[in-house]
Amino acid sequence: MYLAIDIGNSRQKAALFSENGELVTLEEQRQLTSGTLVNWTDKYPVKASILSSVGEERLDLERMLERKTRYIRFSHATPLPIAIDYQQPKTLGLDRIADAVAAQALFPGCNVLAIQCGTCLVMDFVNQEGRYLGGSISPGLEMRLASLHHYTHRLPEVSYRPVDFLIGDTTEKSILGGVVNGMADEIDGAIERYTQKFKELKVMMTGGNCEQLHFSIKHSIFATANAVLYGLYKILLFNEKAKP
Amino acid sequence: MYLAIDIGNSRQKAALFSENGELVTLEEQRQLTSGTLVNWTDKYPVKASILSSVGEERLDLERMLERKTRYIRFSHATPLPIAIDYQQPKTLGLDRIADAVAAQALFPGCNVLAIQCGTCLVMDFVNQEGRYLGGSISPGLEMRLASLHHYTHRLPEVSYRPVDFLIGDTTEKSILGGVVNGMADEIDGAIERYTQKFKELKVMMTGGNCEQLHFSIKHSIFATANAVLYGLYKILLFNEKAKP
Repeated sequence: MYLAIDIGNSRQKAALFSENGELVTLEEQRQLTSGTLVNWTDKYPVKASILSSVGEERLDLERMLERKTRYIRFSHATPLPIAIDYQQPKTLGLDRIADAVAAQALFPGCNVLAIQCGTCLVMDFVNQEGRYLGGSISPGLEMRLASLHHYTHRLPEVSYRPVDFLIGDTTEKSILGGVVNGMADEIDGAIERYTQKFKELKVMMTGGNCEQLHFSIKHSIFATANAVLYGLYKILLFNEKAKP
Repeated sequence: MYLAIDIGNSRQKAALFSENGELVTLEEQRQLTSGTLVNWTDKYPVKASILSSVGEERLDLERMLERKTRYIRFSHATPLPIAIDYQQPKTLGLDRIADAVAAQALFPGCNVLAIQCGTCLVMDFVNQEGRYLGGSISPGLEMRLASLHHYTHRLPEVSYRPVDFLIGDTTEKSILGGVVNGMADEIDGAIERYTQKFKELKVMMTGGNCEQLHFSIKHSIFATANAVLYGLYKILLFNEKAKP
Protein backbone atom coordinates (compact mmCIF):
# COMPACT_ATOMS: atom_id res chain seq x y z
CA MET A 1 0.00 0.00 0.00
CA TYR A 2 0.95 3.61 -0.53
CA LEU A 3 0.57 6.56 1.83
CA ALA A 4 0.10 10.14 0.56
CA ILE A 5 0.06 13.21 2.79
CA ASP A 6 -0.98 16.72 1.77
CA ILE A 7 -0.15 19.52 4.23
CA GLY A 8 -2.26 22.45 3.04
CA ASN A 9 -2.62 26.02 4.27
CA SER A 10 -5.64 25.32 6.43
CA ARG A 11 -6.20 21.52 6.27
CA GLN A 12 -3.93 18.48 6.48
CA LYS A 13 -4.90 15.23 4.77
CA ALA A 14 -3.53 11.69 4.66
CA ALA A 15 -4.73 8.85 2.43
CA LEU A 16 -3.83 5.22 1.98
CA PHE A 17 -4.06 3.78 -1.55
CA SER A 18 -4.09 0.11 -2.50
CA GLU A 19 -1.82 -1.44 -5.16
CA ASN A 20 -4.48 -0.79 -7.81
CA GLY A 21 -5.07 2.83 -6.85
CA GLU A 22 -8.16 2.56 -4.68
CA LEU A 23 -8.54 4.86 -1.74
CA VAL A 24 -8.51 2.59 1.33
CA THR A 25 -8.71 5.15 4.11
CA LEU A 26 -8.62 8.91 4.50
CA GLU A 27 -7.94 11.25 7.40
CA GLU A 28 -8.46 15.02 7.36
CA GLN A 29 -7.53 17.28 10.25
CA ARG A 30 -6.58 20.84 11.00
CA GLN A 31 -3.32 19.22 12.15
CA LEU A 32 -2.60 15.54 11.47
CA THR A 33 -1.26 13.49 14.40
CA SER A 34 1.60 11.06 13.92
CA GLY A 35 -0.51 8.61 15.96
CA THR A 36 -2.91 8.22 13.02
CA LEU A 37 -0.07 7.41 10.67
CA VAL A 38 1.56 4.99 13.12
CA ASN A 39 -1.78 3.18 13.41
CA TRP A 40 -1.92 2.88 9.64
CA THR A 41 1.64 1.63 9.22
CA ASP A 42 1.02 -0.91 12.02
CA LYS A 43 -2.26 -2.10 10.54
CA TYR A 44 -1.51 -2.07 6.80
CA PRO A 45 1.53 -3.13 4.75
CA VAL A 46 2.60 0.40 3.80
CA LYS A 47 5.50 0.09 1.35
CA ALA A 48 6.13 3.69 0.45
CA SER A 49 5.00 7.20 1.34
CA ILE A 50 5.07 10.75 0.03
CA LEU A 51 4.44 14.06 1.80
CA SER A 52 3.81 17.44 0.18
CA SER A 53 3.62 20.66 2.15
CA VAL A 54 2.47 24.10 1.05
CA GLY A 55 1.85 24.93 4.74
CA GLU A 56 3.81 24.24 7.90
CA GLU A 57 6.83 21.91 8.24
CA ARG A 58 5.95 18.49 9.72
CA LEU A 59 9.39 17.03 10.54
CA ASP A 60 7.80 14.71 13.15
CA LEU A 61 5.67 13.01 10.49
CA GLU A 62 8.57 12.92 8.05
CA ARG A 63 10.91 11.21 10.55
CA MET A 64 8.29 8.58 11.34
CA LEU A 65 7.62 7.93 7.63
CA GLU A 66 11.35 7.62 6.92
CA ARG A 67 11.69 5.04 9.68
CA LYS A 68 8.71 2.93 8.67
CA THR A 69 8.44 3.28 4.86
CA ARG A 70 10.35 4.19 1.72
CA TYR A 71 9.72 7.91 2.00
CA ILE A 72 9.76 10.75 -0.54
CA ARG A 73 9.45 14.40 0.40
CA PHE A 74 7.71 15.89 -2.64
CA SER A 75 9.70 18.83 -4.04
CA HIS A 76 10.36 20.60 -7.31
CA ALA A 77 13.21 18.12 -7.88
CA THR A 78 10.96 15.03 -7.70
CA PRO A 79 10.67 13.18 -11.06
CA LEU A 80 7.13 13.47 -12.48
CA PRO A 81 4.92 11.45 -14.84
CA ILE A 82 4.03 14.69 -16.71
CA ALA A 83 6.23 17.32 -18.36
CA ILE A 84 6.18 20.80 -16.84
CA ASP A 85 6.18 23.63 -19.43
CA TYR A 86 6.18 26.48 -16.95
CA GLN A 87 8.52 29.46 -17.13
CA GLN A 88 9.32 29.36 -13.40
CA PRO A 89 8.80 25.71 -12.40
CA LYS A 90 10.24 26.26 -8.91
CA THR A 91 7.50 28.77 -8.10
CA LEU A 92 4.74 26.42 -9.19
CA GLY A 93 2.72 25.29 -6.16
CA LEU A 94 3.26 21.63 -5.28
CA ASP A 95 -0.50 21.16 -4.91
CA ARG A 96 -0.99 22.48 -8.45
CA ILE A 97 1.55 19.94 -9.76
CA ALA A 98 -0.12 17.07 -7.88
CA ASP A 99 -3.55 18.14 -9.10
CA ALA A 100 -2.30 18.24 -12.69
CA VAL A 101 -0.78 14.77 -12.31
CA ALA A 102 -4.13 13.47 -11.03
CA ALA A 103 -5.95 15.08 -13.97
CA GLN A 104 -3.62 13.42 -16.46
CA ALA A 105 -3.87 10.05 -14.66
CA LEU A 106 -7.68 10.17 -14.62
CA PHE A 107 -7.96 11.28 -18.28
CA PRO A 108 -4.85 9.93 -20.02
CA GLY A 109 -4.39 11.21 -23.58
CA CYS A 110 -6.95 13.99 -23.06
CA ASN A 111 -6.77 17.76 -22.75
CA VAL A 112 -7.71 18.28 -19.11
CA LEU A 113 -8.53 21.40 -17.14
CA ALA A 114 -8.02 20.75 -13.42
CA ILE A 115 -9.91 23.19 -11.16
CA GLN A 116 -9.26 23.56 -7.42
CA CYS A 117 -11.88 25.47 -5.41
CA GLY A 118 -10.06 26.07 -2.14
CA THR A 119 -8.46 29.12 -0.54
CA CYS A 120 -7.90 30.17 -4.14
CA LEU A 121 -9.70 29.24 -7.35
CA VAL A 122 -6.83 27.59 -9.21
CA MET A 123 -7.00 26.21 -12.73
CA ASP A 124 -4.31 24.07 -14.33
CA PHE A 125 -4.16 22.72 -17.83
CA VAL A 126 -2.51 19.49 -19.03
CA ASN A 127 -2.63 18.80 -22.76
CA GLN A 128 -3.19 15.45 -24.47
CA GLU A 129 0.55 14.83 -24.71
CA GLY A 130 0.81 14.99 -20.94
CA ARG A 131 2.41 18.43 -20.84
CA TYR A 132 1.45 20.87 -18.11
CA LEU A 133 1.16 24.32 -19.72
CA GLY A 134 0.13 26.53 -16.78
CA GLY A 135 -3.13 28.02 -15.65
CA SER A 136 -4.71 30.72 -13.52
CA ILE A 137 -5.23 31.83 -9.93
CA SER A 138 -8.02 33.99 -8.52
CA PRO A 139 -9.56 34.37 -5.05
CA GLY A 140 -11.55 31.44 -3.61
CA LEU A 141 -15.10 31.58 -2.24
CA GLU A 142 -14.25 32.38 1.40
CA MET A 143 -11.57 34.86 0.36
CA ARG A 144 -14.06 36.81 -1.75
CA LEU A 145 -16.59 36.94 1.09
CA ALA A 146 -13.92 37.99 3.62
CA SER A 147 -12.22 40.58 1.38
CA LEU A 148 -15.45 42.51 0.73
CA HIS A 149 -15.65 43.22 4.45
CA HIS A 150 -11.90 43.67 4.98
CA TYR A 151 -11.30 46.19 2.17
CA THR A 152 -14.46 48.35 2.48
CA HIS A 153 -15.92 50.61 5.15
CA ARG A 154 -19.49 49.43 5.03
CA LEU A 155 -19.92 45.86 3.86
CA PRO A 156 -20.56 43.11 6.44
CA GLU A 157 -18.78 39.76 6.54
CA VAL A 158 -21.21 37.28 5.02
CA SER A 159 -21.11 33.49 5.46
CA TYR A 160 -21.78 31.16 2.58
CA ARG A 161 -25.26 29.83 1.98
CA PRO A 162 -26.75 28.38 -1.19
CA VAL A 163 -27.84 30.88 -3.85
CA ASP A 164 -30.91 30.30 -6.00
CA PHE A 165 -31.51 33.91 -7.06
CA LEU A 166 -29.99 36.38 -9.50
CA ILE A 167 -31.01 39.72 -7.99
CA GLY A 168 -30.10 40.34 -4.36
CA ASP A 169 -32.53 42.67 -2.61
CA THR A 170 -30.55 42.92 0.64
CA THR A 171 -26.83 43.60 1.18
CA GLU A 172 -26.27 39.99 2.26
CA LYS A 173 -28.06 38.58 -0.77
CA SER A 174 -26.27 41.05 -3.06
CA ILE A 175 -22.92 39.77 -1.78
CA LEU A 176 -23.88 36.07 -1.82
CA GLY A 177 -25.34 36.31 -5.31
CA GLY A 178 -22.41 38.34 -6.59
CA VAL A 179 -19.78 36.00 -5.18
CA VAL A 180 -21.41 32.60 -5.82
CA ASN A 181 -22.98 33.29 -9.24
CA GLY A 182 -19.84 35.23 -10.17
CA MET A 183 -17.52 32.32 -9.37
CA ALA A 184 -19.77 29.89 -11.23
CA ASP A 185 -19.74 32.19 -14.28
CA GLU A 186 -15.97 32.58 -13.97
CA ILE A 187 -15.57 28.77 -14.05
CA ASP A 188 -18.04 28.33 -16.92
CA GLY A 189 -16.31 31.13 -18.82
CA ALA A 190 -12.90 29.52 -18.37
CA ILE A 191 -14.25 26.16 -19.56
CA GLU A 192 -15.58 27.89 -22.68
CA ARG A 193 -12.25 29.64 -23.34
CA TYR A 194 -10.35 26.34 -23.03
CA THR A 195 -12.94 24.46 -25.11
CA GLN A 196 -12.48 26.95 -27.93
CA LYS A 197 -8.73 26.42 -27.84
CA PHE A 198 -8.46 22.68 -27.12
CA LYS A 199 -10.65 19.93 -28.53
CA GLU A 200 -12.51 17.43 -26.38
CA LEU A 201 -11.67 19.08 -23.12
CA LYS A 202 -12.22 17.17 -19.88
CA VAL A 203 -12.80 19.16 -16.72
CA MET A 204 -11.90 17.90 -13.26
CA MET A 205 -12.86 19.83 -10.12
CA THR A 206 -11.68 19.39 -6.56
CA GLY A 207 -11.33 21.33 -3.30
CA GLY A 208 -13.28 22.33 -0.23
CA ASN A 209 -15.77 24.60 -2.04
CA CYS A 210 -16.38 22.20 -4.90
CA GLU A 211 -19.84 21.22 -3.69
CA GLN A 212 -21.00 24.80 -3.13
CA LEU A 213 -20.16 25.75 -6.71
CA HIS A 214 -20.85 22.49 -8.52
CA PHE A 215 -24.58 23.00 -8.83
CA SER A 216 -24.26 26.56 -10.13
CA ILE A 217 -22.00 25.54 -13.02
CA LYS A 218 -23.56 24.89 -16.42
CA HIS A 219 -20.85 22.68 -17.90
CA SER A 220 -20.44 19.01 -17.15
CA ILE A 221 -17.48 18.38 -14.87
CA PHE A 222 -15.91 15.44 -13.05
CA ALA A 223 -15.91 16.33 -9.35
CA THR A 224 -13.50 14.48 -7.09
CA ALA A 225 -12.76 15.28 -3.47
CA ASN A 226 -9.19 14.00 -3.25
CA ALA A 227 -7.42 14.82 -6.49
CA VAL A 228 -4.27 16.24 -4.87
CA LEU A 229 -3.80 13.10 -2.74
CA TYR A 230 -4.42 10.91 -5.78
CA GLY A 231 -1.83 12.90 -7.74
CA LEU A 232 0.68 12.48 -4.91
CA TYR A 233 0.01 8.73 -4.94
CA LYS A 234 0.64 8.68 -8.71
CA ILE A 235 3.90 10.60 -8.27
CA LEU A 236 4.98 8.15 -5.56
CA LEU A 237 4.13 5.19 -7.80
CA PHE A 238 6.08 6.73 -10.70
CA ASN A 239 9.14 7.05 -8.49
CA GLU A 240 8.75 3.55 -7.02
CA LYS A 241 8.63 2.03 -10.52
CA ALA A 242 11.68 4.00 -11.63
CA LYS A 243 13.71 2.22 -8.95
CA PRO A 244 16.02 -0.62 -9.95
CA MET B 1 -26.17 75.06 -13.97
CA TYR B 2 -26.11 72.13 -11.57
CA LEU B 3 -23.26 70.89 -9.40
CA ALA B 4 -22.95 67.22 -8.38
CA ILE B 5 -20.37 65.88 -5.93
CA ASP B 6 -19.54 62.24 -5.28
CA ILE B 7 -17.37 61.49 -2.22
CA GLY B 8 -16.22 57.91 -2.76
CA ASN B 9 -14.05 55.61 -0.67
CA SER B 10 -10.85 56.41 -2.50
CA ARG B 11 -11.72 59.20 -4.97
CA GLN B 12 -13.75 62.41 -4.76
CA LYS B 13 -15.39 63.87 -7.86
CA ALA B 14 -17.28 67.04 -8.73
CA ALA B 15 -19.07 67.83 -11.97
CA LEU B 16 -20.95 70.77 -13.37
CA PHE B 17 -23.91 70.04 -15.66
CA SER B 18 -25.65 72.50 -17.99
CA GLU B 19 -29.44 73.02 -18.10
CA ASN B 20 -29.73 70.36 -20.82
CA GLY B 21 -27.64 67.75 -18.99
CA GLU B 22 -24.26 68.22 -20.63
CA LEU B 23 -21.14 67.78 -18.56
CA VAL B 24 -19.46 71.20 -18.55
CA THR B 25 -16.51 70.52 -16.30
CA LEU B 26 -15.20 67.73 -14.11
CA GLU B 27 -12.72 67.54 -11.24
CA GLU B 28 -11.40 64.34 -9.67
CA GLN B 29 -9.10 64.29 -6.66
CA ARG B 30 -8.09 62.10 -3.77
CA GLN B 31 -9.59 64.94 -1.70
CA LEU B 32 -11.54 67.75 -3.35
CA THR B 33 -10.67 71.30 -2.29
CA SER B 34 -13.38 73.83 -1.57
CA GLY B 35 -11.30 76.25 -3.66
CA THR B 36 -12.22 74.35 -6.82
CA LEU B 37 -15.92 74.62 -6.02
CA VAL B 38 -15.69 78.32 -5.08
CA ASN B 39 -14.02 78.95 -8.45
CA TRP B 40 -16.89 77.20 -10.19
CA THR B 41 -19.64 79.00 -8.29
CA ASP B 42 -17.87 82.31 -9.00
CA LYS B 43 -17.40 81.56 -12.70
CA TYR B 44 -20.69 79.80 -13.56
CA PRO B 45 -24.32 80.49 -12.59
CA VAL B 46 -24.69 77.45 -10.30
CA LYS B 47 -28.34 77.25 -9.23
CA ALA B 48 -28.37 74.09 -7.22
CA SER B 49 -26.05 71.41 -5.89
CA ILE B 50 -26.07 67.88 -4.50
CA LEU B 51 -23.44 65.95 -2.55
CA SER B 52 -23.34 62.21 -1.88
CA SER B 53 -20.82 60.60 0.43
CA VAL B 54 -20.01 56.93 0.92
CA GLY B 55 -16.63 57.98 2.34
CA GLU B 56 -15.55 60.77 4.68
CA GLU B 57 -17.71 63.69 5.88
CA ARG B 58 -17.05 66.95 4.00
CA LEU B 59 -18.84 69.55 6.14
CA ASP B 60 -16.57 72.30 4.74
CA LEU B 61 -17.84 71.66 1.21
CA GLU B 62 -21.41 71.31 2.40
CA ARG B 63 -21.35 74.67 4.25
CA MET B 64 -19.96 76.41 1.19
CA LEU B 65 -22.58 74.84 -1.09
CA GLU B 66 -25.37 75.79 1.30
CA ARG B 67 -24.18 79.39 1.29
CA LYS B 68 -23.81 79.70 -2.47
CA THR B 69 -26.48 77.38 -3.96
CA ARG B 70 -29.73 75.57 -3.26
CA TYR B 71 -28.11 72.54 -1.69
CA ILE B 72 -29.25 68.94 -1.15
CA ARG B 73 -27.33 66.40 0.89
CA PHE B 74 -28.20 63.13 -0.84
CA SER B 75 -29.61 60.62 1.66
CA HIS B 76 -31.98 57.67 1.82
CA ALA B 77 -34.78 60.19 2.46
CA THR B 78 -34.21 62.12 -0.78
CA PRO B 79 -37.12 61.78 -3.28
CA LEU B 80 -36.05 59.79 -6.36
CA PRO B 81 -37.12 59.54 -10.02
CA ILE B 82 -37.10 55.70 -9.72
CA ALA B 83 -38.91 53.35 -7.31
CA ILE B 84 -36.74 51.33 -4.95
CA ASP B 85 -37.90 47.71 -4.47
CA TYR B 86 -35.19 46.70 -2.00
CA GLN B 87 -35.86 44.90 1.26
CA GLN B 88 -33.53 47.15 3.25
CA PRO B 89 -33.50 50.46 1.33
CA LYS B 90 -31.55 52.25 4.07
CA THR B 91 -28.61 49.87 3.64
CA LEU B 92 -28.49 50.38 -0.12
CA GLY B 93 -25.32 52.30 -1.06
CA LEU B 94 -26.01 55.86 -2.23
CA ASP B 95 -23.65 55.35 -5.18
CA ARG B 96 -25.69 52.30 -6.22
CA ILE B 97 -28.88 54.39 -6.15
CA ALA B 98 -27.29 57.20 -8.18
CA ASP B 99 -25.90 54.71 -10.70
CA ALA B 100 -29.34 53.11 -11.09
CA VAL B 101 -30.94 56.54 -11.61
CA ALA B 102 -28.36 57.29 -14.33
CA ALA B 103 -29.08 53.94 -16.02
CA GLN B 104 -32.80 54.65 -16.09
CA ALA B 105 -32.24 58.21 -17.35
CA LEU B 106 -29.93 57.04 -20.16
CA PHE B 107 -32.24 54.18 -21.21
CA PRO B 108 -35.78 55.24 -20.24
CA GLY B 109 -38.37 52.48 -20.61
CA CYS B 110 -35.69 49.78 -20.88
CA ASN B 111 -34.50 46.95 -18.65
CA VAL B 112 -31.03 48.16 -17.66
CA LEU B 113 -28.16 46.44 -15.89
CA ALA B 114 -25.82 49.06 -14.40
CA ILE B 115 -22.32 47.74 -13.66
CA GLN B 116 -19.76 49.57 -11.53
CA CYS B 117 -16.16 48.35 -11.72
CA GLY B 118 -14.59 50.11 -8.76
CA THR B 119 -13.41 48.95 -5.33
CA CYS B 120 -16.19 46.38 -5.74
CA LEU B 121 -17.82 44.94 -8.84
CA VAL B 122 -21.39 46.11 -8.25
CA MET B 123 -24.35 45.33 -10.49
CA ASP B 124 -27.76 46.99 -10.20
CA PHE B 125 -30.90 46.29 -12.15
CA VAL B 126 -33.69 48.74 -13.08
CA ASN B 127 -36.63 47.31 -14.99
CA GLN B 128 -38.54 48.95 -17.83
CA GLU B 129 -41.10 50.39 -15.40
CA GLY B 130 -38.34 52.31 -13.66
CA ARG B 131 -38.24 50.07 -10.61
CA TYR B 132 -34.92 49.25 -8.98
CA LEU B 133 -34.97 45.55 -8.02
CA GLY B 134 -31.53 45.00 -6.49
CA GLY B 135 -28.32 43.46 -7.74
CA SER B 136 -25.02 41.95 -6.69
CA ILE B 137 -21.66 42.79 -5.11
CA SER B 138 -18.34 40.99 -5.54
CA PRO B 139 -14.70 42.06 -5.15
CA GLY B 140 -13.28 44.60 -7.63
CA LEU B 141 -10.12 44.20 -9.71
CA GLU B 142 -7.62 45.69 -7.24
CA MET B 143 -9.28 43.92 -4.31
CA ARG B 144 -8.86 40.54 -5.99
CA LEU B 145 -5.19 41.21 -6.73
CA ALA B 146 -4.53 42.44 -3.17
CA SER B 147 -6.48 39.69 -1.40
CA LEU B 148 -4.53 36.86 -3.08
CA HIS B 149 -1.39 38.20 -1.41
CA HIS B 150 -3.07 39.17 1.85
CA TYR B 151 -4.83 35.86 2.53
CA THR B 152 -2.13 33.39 1.41
CA HIS B 153 1.41 32.57 2.52
CA ARG B 154 3.07 32.43 -0.85
CA LEU B 155 1.41 34.55 -3.51
CA PRO B 156 2.96 37.93 -4.41
CA GLU B 157 1.03 41.18 -4.79
CA VAL B 158 0.60 41.68 -8.51
CA SER B 159 -0.21 44.98 -10.25
CA TYR B 160 -2.66 45.15 -13.10
CA ARG B 161 -1.45 44.93 -16.67
CA PRO B 162 -3.40 44.00 -19.79
CA VAL B 163 -4.06 40.29 -20.34
CA ASP B 164 -4.05 38.76 -23.82
CA PHE B 165 -3.47 35.13 -22.78
CA LEU B 166 -5.52 32.31 -21.30
CA ILE B 167 -2.81 30.14 -19.74
CA GLY B 168 -0.42 31.79 -17.30
CA ASP B 169 3.01 30.16 -17.25
CA THR B 170 4.37 32.22 -14.35
CA THR B 171 2.81 33.00 -10.97
CA GLU B 172 2.26 36.63 -11.99
CA LYS B 173 0.61 35.66 -15.28
CA SER B 174 -1.49 32.99 -13.53
CA ILE B 175 -2.83 35.65 -11.16
CA LEU B 176 -3.36 38.31 -13.84
CA GLY B 177 -5.07 35.86 -16.17
CA GLY B 178 -7.19 34.41 -13.39
CA VAL B 179 -8.34 37.78 -12.08
CA VAL B 180 -8.84 39.71 -15.34
CA ASN B 181 -10.31 36.91 -17.50
CA GLY B 182 -12.30 35.76 -14.48
CA MET B 183 -13.89 39.18 -13.95
CA ALA B 184 -14.68 39.51 -17.64
CA ASP B 185 -16.34 36.07 -17.60
CA GLU B 186 -18.21 37.01 -14.42
CA ILE B 187 -19.58 40.14 -16.15
CA ASP B 188 -20.45 38.27 -19.37
CA GLY B 189 -22.10 35.53 -17.32
CA ALA B 190 -24.23 38.04 -15.42
CA ILE B 191 -25.29 39.73 -18.66
CA GLU B 192 -26.39 36.32 -19.97
CA ARG B 193 -28.32 35.53 -16.79
CA TYR B 194 -30.16 38.90 -16.96
CA THR B 195 -30.74 38.56 -20.72
CA GLN B 196 -32.45 35.21 -20.15
CA LYS B 197 -34.72 36.77 -17.56
CA PHE B 198 -35.41 40.23 -19.04
CA LYS B 199 -36.00 41.06 -22.69
CA GLU B 200 -33.97 43.66 -24.57
CA LEU B 201 -31.53 44.29 -21.81
CA LYS B 202 -29.28 47.35 -21.98
CA VAL B 203 -25.99 47.23 -20.13
CA MET B 204 -24.24 50.31 -18.77
CA MET B 205 -20.76 50.13 -17.26
CA THR B 206 -18.85 52.68 -15.22
CA GLY B 207 -16.06 52.93 -12.65
CA GLY B 208 -12.29 53.18 -12.41
CA ASN B 209 -11.55 49.70 -13.79
CA CYS B 210 -14.05 49.95 -16.63
CA GLU B 211 -11.39 50.39 -19.29
CA GLN B 212 -9.26 47.48 -18.09
CA LEU B 213 -12.19 45.08 -18.34
CA HIS B 214 -14.07 46.56 -21.29
CA PHE B 215 -11.97 44.91 -23.99
CA SER B 216 -12.14 41.46 -22.38
CA ILE B 217 -15.96 41.42 -22.32
CA LYS B 218 -17.80 39.70 -25.17
CA HIS B 219 -21.15 41.49 -24.84
CA SER B 220 -21.86 44.95 -26.16
CA ILE B 221 -22.05 47.50 -23.37
CA PHE B 222 -22.43 51.25 -23.00
CA ALA B 223 -19.37 52.46 -21.10
CA THR B 224 -19.59 55.83 -19.38
CA ALA B 225 -17.04 57.28 -17.00
CA ASN B 226 -19.32 59.45 -14.87
CA ALA B 227 -22.59 57.62 -14.36
CA VAL B 228 -22.80 58.23 -10.61
CA LEU B 229 -22.34 62.00 -11.06
CA TYR B 230 -24.92 61.98 -13.86
CA GLY B 231 -27.36 60.12 -11.61
CA LEU B 232 -26.79 62.67 -8.83
CA TYR B 233 -27.49 65.46 -11.32
CA LYS B 234 -30.74 63.72 -12.34
CA ILE B 235 -31.76 63.35 -8.68
CA LEU B 236 -31.01 67.04 -8.10
CA LEU B 237 -33.05 68.01 -11.16
CA PHE B 238 -35.97 65.84 -10.00
CA ASN B 239 -35.99 67.62 -6.63
CA GLU B 240 -35.63 71.07 -8.19
CA LYS B 241 -38.66 70.44 -10.43
CA ALA B 242 -40.72 69.18 -7.50
CA LYS B 243 -40.35 72.60 -5.84
CA PRO B 244 -43.25 75.03 -5.93
